[in-house]
Order: sequence, then C-alpha cells, then structure tokens
Amino acid sequence: MDTSFTISALAAIVKPRQIRGDDSLTVTKISALGDAGPGDLTFLGNPKYRSQVADSDASVLLLPADYDETPAAGQCFLIVENPSVALAQICARIEQSLWPRPTPGVHPSAVVAESAQIAESATIGPLCVVEDGAMIGERSHLQAQVFVGRSAVVGADCWLAAGSHLATTCELGARVRLHGGVIIGADGFGYEVVEGRHAKVPQVGIVHVGDDVEIGANSTIDRARFSRTEIGEGTKIDNQVQVAHNVVIGRHCVLCAQVGIAGSTTLEDYVVMGGQSGAAGHIRVAKGTQVAGRGGLTANITDPGLVYSGMPAMPYRLERRLVILQRRLPDLFKKVDSLLNDLEELKKASA
Amino acid sequence: MDTSFTISALAAIVKPRQIRGDDSLTVTKISALGDAGPGDLTFLGNPKYRSQVADSDASVLLLPADYDETPAAGQCFLIVENPSVALAQICARIEQSLWPRPTPGVHPSAVVAESAQIAESATIGPLCVVEDGAMIGERSHLQAQVFVGRSAVVGADCWLAAGSHLATTCELGARVRLHGGVIIGADGFGYEVVEGRHAKVPQVGIVHVGDDVEIGANSTIDRARFSRTEIGEGTKIDNQVQVAHNVVIGRHCVLCAQVGIAGSTTLEDYVVMGGQSGAAGHIRVAKGTQVAGRGGLTANITDPGLVYSGMPAMPYRLERRLVILQRRLPDLFKKVDSLLNDLEELKKASA
Amino acid sequence: MDTSFTISALAAIVKPRQIRGDDSLTVTKISALGDAGPGDLTFLGNPKYRSQVADSDASVLLLPADYDETPAAGQCFLIVENPSVALAQICARIEQSLWPRPTPGVHPSAVVAESAQIAESATIGPLCVVEDGAMIGERSHLQAQVFVGRSAVVGADCWLAAGSHLATTCELGARVRLHGGVIIGADGFGYEVVEGRHAKVPQVGIVHVGDDVEIGANSTIDRARFSRTEIGEGTKIDNQVQVAHNVVIGRHCVLCAQVGIAGSTTLEDYVVMGGQSGAAGHIRVAKGTQVAGRGGLTANITDPGLVYSGMPAMPYRLERRLVILQRRLPDLFKKVDSLLNDLEELKKASA
Repeated sequence: MDTSFTISALAAIVKPRQIRGDDSLTVTKISALGDAGPGDLTFLGNPKYRSQVADSDASVLLLPADYDETPAAGQCFLIVENPSVALAQICARIEQSLWPRPTPGVHPSAVVAESAQIAESATIGPLCVVEDGAMIGERSHLQAQVFVGRSAVVGADCWLAAGSHLATTCELGARVRLHGGVIIGADGFGYEVVEGRHAKVPQVGIVHVGDDVEIGANSTIDRARFSRTEIGEGTKIDNQVQVAHNVVIGRHCVLCAQVGIAGSTTLEDYVVMGGQSGAAGHIRVAKGTQVAGRGGLTANITDPGLVYSGMPAMPYRLERRLVILQRRLPDLFKKVDSLLNDLEELKKASA
Repeated sequence: MDTSFTISALAAIVKPRQIRGDDSLTVTKISALGDAGPGDLTFLGNPKYRSQVADSDASVLLLPADYDETPAAGQCFLIVENPSVALAQICARIEQSLWPRPTPGVHPSAVVAESAQIAESATIGPLCVVEDGAMIGERSHLQAQVFVGRSAVVGADCWLAAGSHLATTCELGARVRLHGGVIIGADGFGYEVVEGRHAKVPQVGIVHVGDDVEIGANSTIDRARFSRTEIGEGTKIDNQVQVAHNVVIGRHCVLCAQVGIAGSTTLEDYVVMGGQSGAAGHIRVAKGTQVAGRGGLTANITDPGLVYSGMPAMPYRLERRLVILQRRLPDLFKKVDSLLNDLEELKKASA
Repeated sequence: MDTSFTISALAAIVKPRQIRGDDSLTVTKISALGDAGPGDLTFLGNPKYRSQVADSDASVLLLPADYDETPAAGQCFLIVENPSVALAQICARIEQSLWPRPTPGVHPSAVVAESAQIAESATIGPLCVVEDGAMIGERSHLQAQVFVGRSAVVGADCWLAAGSHLATTCELGARVRLHGGVIIGADGFGYEVVEGRHAKVPQVGIVHVGDDVEIGANSTIDRARFSRTEIGEGTKIDNQVQVAHNVVIGRHCVLCAQVGIAGSTTLEDYVVMGGQSGAAGHIRVAKGTQVAGRGGLTANITDPGLVYSGMPAMPYRLERRLVILQRRLPDLFKKVDSLLNDLEELKKASA
C-alpha cells in the first residue's frame, strides 16, 4: 500500500459521526488492533477486543458510536456506525489505487487474431494471446500474458489476471475474476483400457462459468467429455482447487483452497467445502451442505443444510464424538482386559 | 462445440447398420440421455438406462442393434454396433475441429534461440520461448506462451498447451501431451541444515517423460538430485499432481488429481492412485497396486495387484470394516460400561 | 546433464586425499551406487551400503578415507573426507553449466514500464512484463515470461523462473528463488454474505517474502486483507503449497509439497510441515513443531519442538498407538460380545 490518508481524506470516505482528537494526522498503513503503531489506522471490528483500544498506539482508530473514551495525545478517533464497514470502504479506495482502471485498447505486444471480437472498452494487456473467433466483452481486462483460446467467450467486466488461461470454446459470464495460473478448459481425465494401454476418450465439451464467479490462483476446471462443466453464478473458488470434467457446481457455493471435486459430481446451490476437502465422482450433494476441512464426501447427500466431516465424511457431531472416543481407545482396551480377568476370577469363585 | 451434424454427416462417421426415422434432422450438441432435448444427439451407453430412451426428446439417438422400438416424430435412431464407440468417433471428429492441425512454422512473436533445432513440421505458437540447444520434434506443437529451456528435448508429435514449461535439459518422448501450467523440471526439494539454516542441495538431474504420457493442468514433476526422475511410457497424470525428485513411475500408471508422490519412491507398472492420495518417500509400490482416493501409502507394497485405502493405507477390505466398526464405537463404550456395572453387581451378589 | 568430467577435472573440484586406480577415465553421468554402470560417477553416501561398492560397475567412486579396497580394472576411486560433500561440490559445478550467469540487460521482447527501476546488473529475460514503479535488484534474473506487477519489489540476487508471478506491491528480499508457476500476491479469499450473495472483501495488503526463501513450482501465497502475509527469512516451500492471506510463517520453516495453511495462522520459526499436511485458520504453532505427512493442525500448539500427526493432529506417539489399536477393533468387538455371553451365563448360573 503506497497510499497515505489524512484525517480529512478518511472522513470523506467513511463520513464519521464524530472526529475526536488530533485531526492533523496522516496514516500510511492499516494494521490489526493488536499490532497497530504510530502512523497506522486500525479499527474495533469485534467488541471483545474493546479493552485493547485504550492500550493502542495506533494514530487513527475507527470506533463504534458507543465508545466514549478520549483519545491519547497524537491520536484520533473516527466514530462511525460500523467500524468494519468503514474499513472496507477505505480498503475499496486503496483497491482502486492498486488496480486502477486500465486504458482500453490492445497492447502492441499482444497477439490477437483478426477474427477475434474485442469490445472497444476492453483492455488486452501486454503479451496476451487471443485466438481466432474469441470474444472479449465490454470493459473486460486481460492483465498480461493471458491466453484466450479459439472461439472462447469472455463476458463483460471480467478481470483475467496475468497468466490465466481460458481454453478453446469455454465461456465466462459477466464480472468473472480469474487469478494467476487458473486453467479453464484443460481436457477432462478420461481413458479406456485397450490392449493394456490407456486410450484417450476425446473431451469435446466446454466449461461454462456463470456471472460473478471468482476463481483463485492455480485452480483448474476441466472441460466436459461432451456438453459442459458448469460453475454456477456467484460461486467463489479459492486457490489450487480442482474441478473435474462434467462437474456441475451450483450458485453461490464456496470451495476453499485445495478442494477436489471428482468427475460428474453435482453440488447444489450454497454448498461450502472446507480446505483440502473433496467429493468423489458421480455423486449429488444437497443444497447448503457444509463439509469441514479435509472432509471427504463419498456418497450422495440428500438432506439439505447439514454439516459433514471426516473421511469418509459423516455427520459432524458423530465425527466429533468418534474422534473423542478414539482417543479413549487405550483405556477401553485396558477396561476390557480387566473385565476378562474379573470374569475369569468370578467363574473360578463360583465353580 | 460450434459444430453441427446432419444425419448424413453422422452416418458417414459411425456407419450405422440402420437409420430409423426422420433423416432430415441436424444436431448441434451432444447431451447425456437424461438431459438431451430437441437438437441434441445422445446415446445409450449403458443398458440399465434403456427405459429412458422412450421418454427422450433428443433429436438423434445412437442405439444398439437389439433396440427395436420406433422413433417419435421428428426423431431419428442410428442403430450401431456399439453406441459408446460411435459416440467416441463423433467426438474425435469434433476434437479435430476444436484443435485443427496447426500450420508448421515459428510464430514471429516467439523467441527461439538460433541454436535450437526445430523440426520443419513443428509449430511454435505465439510468445513461446525456446532456449539454446533445445530440440523440438516432427509435428510437435507448442500452443502459445510455452517455455522450453536450454538443451531440453521435445519428441515427435507432442502437444504442449499454452503456458506449459519444460525446464533445461529435461526430455519428452513421442506423443506426450502437457496441459496448461504443467511445470516439468523445477528443482527437487532438498536441503541440508548447516548452522541452523537450510543449505540448498543442487538438483542437477533431469526429468525423462516416456512416450504417450499425458500430464494434466498445473501438475509438477521435479528434476532429480542427479540422474533422472522418470515417468514411464503410457502413464496418465491428472491435474495438480506432484511428483518429487528421483521418483520413478512405471508404464501405464494412472495418477488422479491432486496426488502427491514423495521423493525417490518407485511405482511399478499399472499402479493406480485415486484422487488426493499419496505415497511417502523412498518406498516401492508393486505392479498393479490400486490406492483409493485420499489413501496414503507409508511403506513398501510388495504383493502386486491389491487394493489399499485409508491413512495410513491398509488393505481395502480391512479399512472398510474398520470404518464400520468405528461408527459403532459409541455402542461399544456403552456396552463395556454396562458390563462393568453388571459385573460389579454380580460380585456383590456372590460376595 | 550434458557435462563430462575427467579424473583431473573431478580432482580439481573435490581435492581428493588419494586417487586410486585408472586416472584416465571420463564420466558423463552421476548415478546412485546401486544403479551406476560404466561411464558413471557414484559415491558412498551412507556406510550401510558399503558392501555394494565391491559389486559396482561405476567408473569413478567417491569413497571415504577408511575404504581401503582396490578398484577393479577400468575403475577409479577418489578418496575424500566426506563423499556426500564431494558429490555436492561436483553437482554445484554442473549447476553452473545448467544455469550459467545470464548477461545483464533487458531482452528486447520484454515489456518493461519506463518507471520501473531495473538494476544494471539484473537480467530481464524474453517476454517478461515489469509494470510501473516495480524495482528489480542487483544481479536478479527474471528467466522468461515472468510477471512483476506495479510497484512490486524484487531484491538482489533473486531468481524468478519462467512463468512465475509477483503481483502488485508485493516484495521479495534478497536471494529469493521462485520456481515456475508460483503466484505471489493473488487476492486472499474473503467474502461477506449480503442478501444471499458473497460480497468481496477487498484484499489490499501485500506479501512480504524474506531473504533466502525458495518457493516451489505452482505454489501460491495470497496477499493480506490489509497489512501483510509474511514468509520468514530462510524458509523453504515445496511445490503446490497454499499459504492464505495474513498468514505469518517464521524463519527457517520447511513446508513440503501440497501443504495448505489457512488464513491468519502463524507458524513460529523452524516449523516443519510434511507433505499434504495442513493447518486451520487463526491458530498459532509453536517454534520447531513438526507435523507428519497428511497431518491436520486444528488448534494452537503451545509447547515447542513436538511432533504431531493424524487428522485432527495429535501427539505422534498417541496417533501411532491409536492406529495400531484401531486395527485391533475387530478383535475387541468380538471380545466384548463373548464377555456379554459369559456374563449372561454366569447370571443364569448364579440365579
């Protein structure tokens, strides 16, 4: 962050109810409440940290309306409705400076096929490749070294980070964001064994990514065998996630980092998969299902809205209970051995 | 898929025994039997879905010889020996239109060293880099933005997707396919602790990839410490697979997505590793071993052809049994407690 | 390895105490003791393989001072203090030939902003992009197709492999090595649910990578929500590792392949994470903690220097014991059933 903010600049963004303390300060960094020092802006995002405010050396603090203490010398309180929202407003302003709207047009080093259709308001950055018949929508931005294959379609207002790839005939909706190294539309993994060798099954379907999807760095979404692999509108995918061919992911799902979804599986809307979790192929996962980190779904989930964990995944409460009981196994084995002894003695006694 | 097929075009590809119904139709999409609608081509790939054929709205259906019903109005049946094979033939035709044979030659935007040897029939796409002394074989195709390092060798008829990387001195056999973001030949992960710091162990071996290998998007195969990391002929590797230095993978193995193989491990021929599974370092895995998804091999497997699962991996049937018994642990704990009570009472009674 | 070494060339590098046998030989390859044949150089790195030396067909062997046998005809022994160190010295020499120091300067095909500051001794390879205000330090080398975003900083003596990415405003210290496909500074994964949709939380912090860090192929380190994600000095990260936003990794840590660290977690110095292991978000892991492969940390670790394994992770010895007891569960269930029977009979008898 190479931006600095005066109190008046901050006030113009967050429109505080009150400015309390030294209004001549400038901040150059945002820090968490526990870490902030002089020159830093911080905020009280969670009431449980309220007691830390008095000890903070931060220059400027975003605080809620019910905080009525007085700032220290060389400190300024901005009293706002919701400090978290206020911080987000400031971050959004910084975001604009980090990624300013680029000038529309095609960089002279980009290689764009004549038959590609590039919207006038779009930006094709340096060293991008856009192949025959591809379409790039209004205001979309290919940052640098991006690849868009033959007849692929990028909707309006998309952002494709440096080094992201959209393979031939695949489609992005509007406002899609691809981070670096994302590969959309590599071949699905399909072979048939013919005389002891794996013969390739052609993968001629596409990937269709809905509106408002964001996909994290180095994630991969494979093209369908035929028809389409689908990522539903509003779904958010973290880094290094693998989505296999013919998977259908519903709307507003969340897939955390390093998740893997095997072929032909369907996630209904609002499914949440924790980090490093996975789903086997050819299963259907009900709406609103949540899977804990490292959980592994191996069968259909038909009841919506439940939480699963473990491998193979089971209802969360059961899995928690089993984890506790497993740690008591050494005791159980001892108990059973002593039971055997006692019983043996009892038998002898009663004989 | 931007291709459309008339009945006569389809017939020319699949050579049906019989065309039954409306032979004036055109299809523009392939769909699964349960999803297909007007304008779609579908097929009966599995006899268990036979009853769905009568309800299908698909325009054209590939059906086996023993299917003797009559098509609906505006529908056409192509009766073939094997509907799955017929579909694959059509997909192969579509594949050619998705990835037509490129024109041989070096794109003017590619940066190719003078000392590199590029076969006349090879295609070097836009913005590729081919360094000193590298060799690119006959008919091989570097799609775009590919990197081939110093003295690396690409055999004949290879396909290197946009953004794939072959590091210095590494070698690909013939007909190798690398998908986007594949990194062949990054340094193996080796350090020695010297005075509390990790000192790098030079990694000067290579990666050798055999004929007919396919490697999925964003997978990584590290170069050997010395000598070579090997991927055997005909092996197929899915997306986001990690193969560490000095690993030897046999012929015709299958590594599903997100598998990790630690350093110096050997997989013999025909080993299959399920999604997110792994193998520890310095172990040997017998021919034809199969590891279920998420399974973790931690020791040598000496008997060939067996199935393993769980972490640490154990024989599949044992692991299945343990999973079931674990879910009965709450009952077992209760049983043992009640046994203790009963025994206590019995003791009192007999005292 | 396209290098060959004569005995005198080898002797100049390793400075042997003694050269025993045929000193006219040339080697063209390094192999492990068990694999080496004529023309190969090998070494006795571990005393337990001592008996293999006599059977070896290697042309040249690096052997310790206490090895006093005589070489076969056409064989040469180089007697050295420490054969492993001697091998590393030879490998370091080969390393220089594999990656010779590049000529300083900017390749004409690179796209470098006028406002970027490139040290005179730095090398910017073909088809790299360096954006406005970025700084590239002395002797640093961007191999090819590298992306360095606006105002990002690369320290001195760094090596950025082909296709690595350093996003806007992120920072590398000195002697940092990034392998192919590494993405530093993609957005952290943060959303707030607003009316059933995931609204993006801006991610405006940076990633700061300390001196002497190495990061493996296709690993991803996300930028902080605000402030910084940190990778401490001397830490080594393998391939396909995911480090989420606001994570702090201490100095001299080791993260093996496919590890995932969730958001806002702190690893203190000298933490070692085995392959495919992970750590949940918002936890703190004490200095020198070691996590076995596939282990999953889900809570704070406060005692330093201990070993954990399993999911959820527990002390290593406990986990080993539980694994063994779990395999005895079938027996335990049988025992308890027979106990129940015996008790039943005893009850009847005493009634």
